[in-house]
Amino acid sequence: MPRCPITPHIEALVDLAIEEDLGRGDATTAAVSLGAVPGKGRILAKEPVVVCGLDLAMYVFGRVSPGLMLSPLVADGDEAPAGAELLVMTGPLAPMLEAERTALNFLQRMSGVATLTRRMTRLIEETGAKARLVDTRKTLPGWRLLDKHAVRCGGGGNHRFDLASGVLIKDNHIAAAGSVWEAVTRARRLAPHTLRVEVEVTSLAELEEALHAKAEVILLDNMDTGTMATAVGLVAGRALVEASGGVTEETLAAIARTGVDLISMGTLTHSARAVDLSMYVQRA
Amino acid sequence: MPRCPITPHIEALVDLAIEEDLGRGDATTAAVSLGAVPGKGRILAKEPVVVCGLDLAMYVFGRVSPGLMLSPLVADGDEAPAGAELLVMTGPLAPMLEAERTALNFLQRMSGVATLTRRMTRLIEETGAKARLVDTRKTLPGWRLLDKHAVRCGGGGNHRFDLASGVLIKDNHIAAAGSVWEAVTRARRLAPHTLRVEVEVTSLAELEEALHAKAEVILLDNMDTGTMATAVGLVAGRALVEASGGVTEETLAAIARTGVDLISMGTLTHSARAVDLSMYVQRA
Amino acid sequence: MPRCPITPHIEALVDLAIEEDLGRGDATTAAVSLGAVPGKGRILAKEPVVVCGLDLAMYVFGRVSPGLMLSPLVADGDEAPAGAELLVMTGPLAPMLEAERTALNFLQRMSGVATLTRRMTRLIEETGAKARLVDTRKTLPGWRLLDKHAVRCGGGGNHRFDLASGVLIKDNHIAAAGSVWEAVTRARRLAPHTLRVEVEVTSLAELEEALHAKAEVILLDNMDTGTMATAVGLVAGRALVEASGGVTEETLAAIARTGVDLISMGTLTHSARAVDLSMYVQRA
Amino acid sequence: MPRCPITPHIEALVDLAIEEDLGRGDATTAAVSLGAVPGKGRILAKEPVVVCGLDLAMYVFGRVSPGLMLSPLVADGDEAPAGAELLVMTGPLAPMLEAERTALNFLQRMSGVATLTRRMTRLIEETGAKARLVDTRKTLPGWRLLDKHAVRCGGGGNHRFDLASGVLIKDNHIAAAGSVWEAVTRARRLAPHTLRVEVEVTSLAELEEALHAKAEVILLDNMDTGTMATAVGLVAGRALVEASGGVTEETLAAIARTGVDLISMGTLTHSARAVDLSMYVQRA
Amino acid sequence: MPRCPITPHIEALVDLAIEEDLGRGDATTAAVSLGAVPGKGRILAKEPVVVCGLDLAMYVFGRVSPGLMLSPLVADGDEAPAGAELLVMTGPLAPMLEAERTALNFLQRMSGVATLTRRMTRLIEETGAKARLVDTRKTLPGWRLLDKHAVRCGGGGNHRFDLASGVLIKDNHIAAAGSVWEAVTRARRLAPHTLRVEVEVTSLAELEEALHAKAEVILLDNMDTGTMATAVGLVAGRALVEASGGVTEETLAAIARTGVDLISMGTLTHSARAVDLSMYVQRA
Amino acid sequence: MPRCPITPHIEALVDLAIEEDLGRGDATTAAVSLGAVPGKGRILAKEPVVVCGLDLAMYVFGRVSPGLMLSPLVADGDEAPAGAELLVMTGPLAPMLEAERTALNFLQRMSGVATLTRRMTRLIEETGAKARLVDTRKTLPGWRLLDKHAVRCGGGGNHRFDLASGVLIKDNHIAAAGSVWEAVTRARRLAPHTLRVEVEVTSLAELEEALHAKAEVILLDNMDTGTMATAVGLVAGRALVEASGGVTEETLAAIARTGVDLISMGTLTHSARAVDLSMYVQRA
Repeated sequence: MPRCPITPHIEALVDLAIEEDLGRGDATTAAVSLGAVPGKGRILAKEPVVVCGLDLAMYVFGRVSPGLMLSPLVADGDEAPAGAELLVMTGPLAPMLEAERTALNFLQRMSGVATLTRRMTRLIEETGAKARLVDTRKTLPGWRLLDKHAVRCGGGGNHRFDLASGVLIKDNHIAAAGSVWEAVTRARRLAPHTLRVEVEVTSLAELEEALHAKAEVILLDNMDTGTMATAVGLVAGRALVEASGGVTEETLAAIARTGVDLISMGTLTHSARAVDLSMYVQRA
Repeated sequence: MPRCPITPHIEALVDLAIEEDLGRGDATTAAVSLGAVPGKGRILAKEPVVVCGLDLAMYVFGRVSPGLMLSPLVADGDEAPAGAELLVMTGPLAPMLEAERTALNFLQRMSGVATLTRRMTRLIEETGAKARLVDTRKTLPGWRLLDKHAVRCGGGGNHRFDLASGVLIKDNHIAAAGSVWEAVTRARRLAPHTLRVEVEVTSLAELEEALHAKAEVILLDNMDTGTMATAVGLVAGRALVEASGGVTEETLAAIARTGVDLISMGTLTHSARAVDLSMYVQRA
Repeated sequence: MPRCPITPHIEALVDLAIEEDLGRGDATTAAVSLGAVPGKGRILAKEPVVVCGLDLAMYVFGRVSPGLMLSPLVADGDEAPAGAELLVMTGPLAPMLEAERTALNFLQRMSGVATLTRRMTRLIEETGAKARLVDTRKTLPGWRLLDKHAVRCGGGGNHRFDLASGVLIKDNHIAAAGSVWEAVTRARRLAPHTLRVEVEVTSLAELEEALHAKAEVILLDNMDTGTMATAVGLVAGRALVEASGGVTEETLAAIARTGVDLISMGTLTHSARAVDLSMYVQRA
Repeated sequence: MPRCPITPHIEALVDLAIEEDLGRGDATTAAVSLGAVPGKGRILAKEPVVVCGLDLAMYVFGRVSPGLMLSPLVADGDEAPAGAELLVMTGPLAPMLEAERTALNFLQRMSGVATLTRRMTRLIEETGAKARLVDTRKTLPGWRLLDKHAVRCGGGGNHRFDLASGVLIKDNHIAAAGSVWEAVTRARRLAPHTLRVEVEVTSLAELEEALHAKAEVILLDNMDTGTMATAVGLVAGRALVEASGGVTEETLAAIARTGVDLISMGTLTHSARAVDLSMYVQRA
Repeated sequence: MPRCPITPHIEALVDLAIEEDLGRGDATTAAVSLGAVPGKGRILAKEPVVVCGLDLAMYVFGRVSPGLMLSPLVADGDEAPAGAELLVMTGPLAPMLEAERTALNFLQRMSGVATLTRRMTRLIEETGAKARLVDTRKTLPGWRLLDKHAVRCGGGGNHRFDLASGVLIKDNHIAAAGSVWEAVTRARRLAPHTLRVEVEVTSLAELEEALHAKAEVILLDNMDTGTMATAVGLVAGRALVEASGGVTEETLAAIARTGVDLISMGTLTHSARAVDLSMYVQRA
Repeated sequence: MPRCPITPHIEALVDLAIEEDLGRGDATTAAVSLGAVPGKGRILAKEPVVVCGLDLAMYVFGRVSPGLMLSPLVADGDEAPAGAELLVMTGPLAPMLEAERTALNFLQRMSGVATLTRRMTRLIEETGAKARLVDTRKTLPGWRLLDKHAVRCGGGGNHRFDLASGVLIKDNHIAAAGSVWEAVTRARRLAPHTLRVEVEVTSLAELEEALHAKAEVILLDNMDTGTMATAVGLVAGRALVEASGGVTEETLAAIARTGVDLISMGTLTHSARAVDLSMYVQRA
């Protein structure tokens, strides 16, 4: 199972999150005098979810108070039914309540991305096609690593992490360079040798041009599935083929059946719904 | 129109966002040799949107390169039809392409929240009811200020910004304190005098207890609209009444008609869909 | 007893403090070759104090060296007589000496605020009046949370933490809005529903206007005690009444006796004297 | 006149200060709808002051809003009578009001330190003695540079900036090293050659030992003025002599007359009173 | 010519550098009273250099004081003879002297890397071989982007920027995975599709295994040039070939003549000598 | 033995270093599926070295994963022969491999500086002269403390840490002040009393002027050894004498024999070669 990346960058994001909710203290918890009252807290799924962000949620609770004992009952990537307990904790009630919303906000969003991804990968698996579902760079600013971790937890793969870990020549680059052939040729000469050269094409003519220039990955942009299938046949294994652009739950299976190697889907990270989770506490 | 808050906190978030996408440079733009090529870029709406995040997007472009000339054509809070130009810029193509995804990721998310909020506030307005739509603390971690700004751009109001700017006694606090009455009474004695005391109730019995303890705002949690209307009648102006919990596009109008003062809706920020925007560049 | 807030913000402040004193090492301790010499250190009160900042001082020592064993003998909020030991530590002498000044600077300032606050709250208690002593936003920049914690340790209460956790309409807002009535009315319509609306008045005429506009808290600015008492009578429980402006040790009791609910005093945090504390070390 | 140091460290402190007061926006200014109303603001002295922190206050206003036009009427180090205008600004009223408290909190504290220092240096000047008044490391944590700048503005000098910019052997180092002679001898051998070796002595016997070990600066700790004068005679120019410990406004002149070279006074920074300043705004 | 990356990361590094040298001010410049004295400063090469870091040096001067007028006479990547002026500036002398060492330390190191790289790429060019000289990840911690920019300025190419922008299977990965074949096969299945799979081999047998597993780049580790030439023949264009390990100025030409595609050389960044530059100022 | 300073500043540098290499994860280690495989890692010297940076390397491994057990076999300042094990660790292989390069980059650079320094101090020791080898401020930006620690580990001493911990009047200050005498006299009057006044001279005439002005340390800039010896004789113990400028391995002994007190050498930190170290892992 994928490990959640808690890097200095992510620690900085968590600090921003804690500051913005809890930075001046919790007026309610203080006012109802819960300072040192010991108790137990449980986080539950209110609907079936693919869990993601549990290590991060525990990091948040620990950052707010090292005095909480945290016992995870599932792990990132697990499926949990409605009603399942995800995390149990004991210790003073005050820090549980203070950290609750920040921890849940991470967990609900990340599990939302994982849950959506899992449903999409299932749709592809049911077709028996080889296509791999991957994410895009349409992630929440500041959240790139977490969103990509959530996609992995859902069973998807990761497209490039940033502008340095892949060459992807898009319409704007082609417009600026003059032609598909020109852009790909330049990139094959100048890009780091560790990167494959991928290019976006919008027609079969551009596809031929890209193959001629020895592109290693071809992105078929917003094509209908008939054209996609033709494209896959034309490529004939000379490059990897990625379908992209406006992919939806409805069109996913048909796209997979065209024989493409990869399907990228921005929705996974730019428009996932948060899953429904709750925390309950009780006095010890 | 609301000003977008670009505080030290938000500047730190933007820096995280720039680092995660562009922190090692842009292999593609470098490889197609676009360094100093001058040109023009335009950001367009691909669907009708309520614009939000334009100042922030311009801040992102300026942070990546002070050499870009930026001309906004709309302002945060404006409605723009499909096809509308939101922002035009001129200067070297390379930094436009390098900053594109980060700027759009902010703009698409924030406009998504504003657009959804506007659609919801319209539903309430059509009922003629007085209810004000407000957000919750179910915002993206690190994004609290931006999400709340987006809600304002959509015509909604803001619930408390953090745990210090409002007292909201929820089920967990009541469980820990022992009773609604006990929790509210403590809070009225101990909370800062600048804050009203709000309490969540799940039944009419709890509502009576809350009123008896002089709660200034009552949150009706997950009640059906019939019970809500009864509750509003019982309160009779002695407190503000907020409806919350599972509010959806389908139930919103009916809830507004119960006469509540406020309706809070987590969906506005935890599950908004990104709107569809694109950037196009051309050589000068 | 109040917990000292050691948030990411406060950790950043402590890091600034450690860097500015110890960031290039301690030339003296190095030059007298104390590196690994074990010993014992004690922090003592040289005058009677209300202790505040002990948890923070321990955080400072631990941040400089995790190898120190720290044993607090009192807690934040306790009164300690002259000569009392507040903290004992054992371990290598070098980090004790390196962290000494930074830790003491926090502890002496915070205890200074707490000690002054306690003396003031005692003066009110002796009158038998109900008035609660509260702080203001005239805190040391960067130190807001620590100063407010110190006031709580001294027995005072906290006014709003920041510009978002309370509505307080002051002379400048009134000047800009046009009148007390206009300003209060706007604020009651537009401010978050979680906040009470407080307004500063300088005359009984303004007080009437404020009450008419349904202000929930009235701040009597720089009034003599006679006028204050009249004002309290006029309000007659319809709003909370806060006395503010030029409150001194000499006038405090008389103000409390006017029947106001709250007395705010900037001196507590902007002009508190540091208490006298010392650290002594000896070789083991 | 001394320049105010606005280093990366101080910028970080300002950001903490802005975040803690204005990080979630200004509920009052927003609620009274002052967003774009233009106007004029003036900062006035309410008592005679030595100005300090004006550049920093302008930095704060500029950090909150680059749209304010700022016109300083005095400079750091100037004396201003009660009623004097220190700073005039024009532009939108909202950011003036939002930044007011943070800017004033810096300015009132720093001018407080400068004003107190000036009064003390005047007392020494009146004696005609050569003694130079210097500060200590008893500064506000996070504020070292600002406090030391304020002392310079008041006419005082700076003792060492941190533990690396001076060797000062104190009682604890002597206790750990075994004797004055041993500590000074080690330090003269091992300390960086750019630093003088200063040692604290509490008796004339220790003074002899320090001179014998070739200490370059002698700190007379908590001696009565008679003993101080004797000490100065004994040193006879072989070292600089600093008086320290419990120096007060009452004892300062007498100490200066003993002929010491330096007098250090912690009160300047650990217990200075904030001066009284106010900001007034009016609509344009 | 390559642009110098001044990202948030690099800005943070510059702030660390300014803080560590200038964070408490410049005792010498202050003591010789140079505050506002205007003048002119010039940075000169004391030996022939390939310039690198000039934009960064200007950023440093600007960060210390926006009041300096900076006029660069060369650009990153230019060759400058001994005696050449690189940068001229006018303005107050104090900030020139305060920023001098920090700016020069960047410039001397970066130009040192660029100058060494240029000498090495010349050696390859003289052979007429196609090999491209590239760097490694053996860069100064915190300096990755600057070191890689300096290599580009010297005419070299960049190997991967970080662990995410290239797959390079080394001895330790092979040891852990069990065999070259196993490691390459796994990587081709699991690595992001945007990355080529490179593997390190130490013998011709491992080379065969790597080719069999369809590695796209082969790193020949520490081979003699005879074996390298044989390896190039065996690969026969089926993969790119990189020579690495113990490459020196003496062996570089012979390695290039073996026909490898790439030669990586850690010395470029881990052991480059700083070039000799000086700054001279004069009063205006 | 000197302790390695791991201050907030250095922690920030380490975070930059980890982010730049590992900030998006390790594509290779992930692709060869080494996540939880346990094993052992060893860091070895491939040549004789003076060890430096071992505590920092362990801090890096611990920062990447607290799950690694780290056992150092030597300490900073120790000499280790080729083949010596410096550090052994056990735990999951993945974080070992992920942190390897960052940890080694610190260790190889710091040991490089220490090894070079040791060789230079040996050369002086062999002459029997008293001269102490010291570093300069020509350190890697961001690395000041680490470079100075490495010099100490090599047996050298530290010149001033920053512009505030020493007064060193150089050619540019003299040019600006007008003369050596003027500059030294000003500095003795105005500099903090904790600092000695050092001045650079380039001729015996300037030396006389400096002595006349009572400079406490004289820096002989780029003099031949004959002139240096004359200068030492002229000074006759009235000041410390430092030789500086173009000191090399070849000239060091001769300079030491002139009788100077200090020899400063920029090469120690601006041009040290990294030593050769490797890490090897094996499955448990």
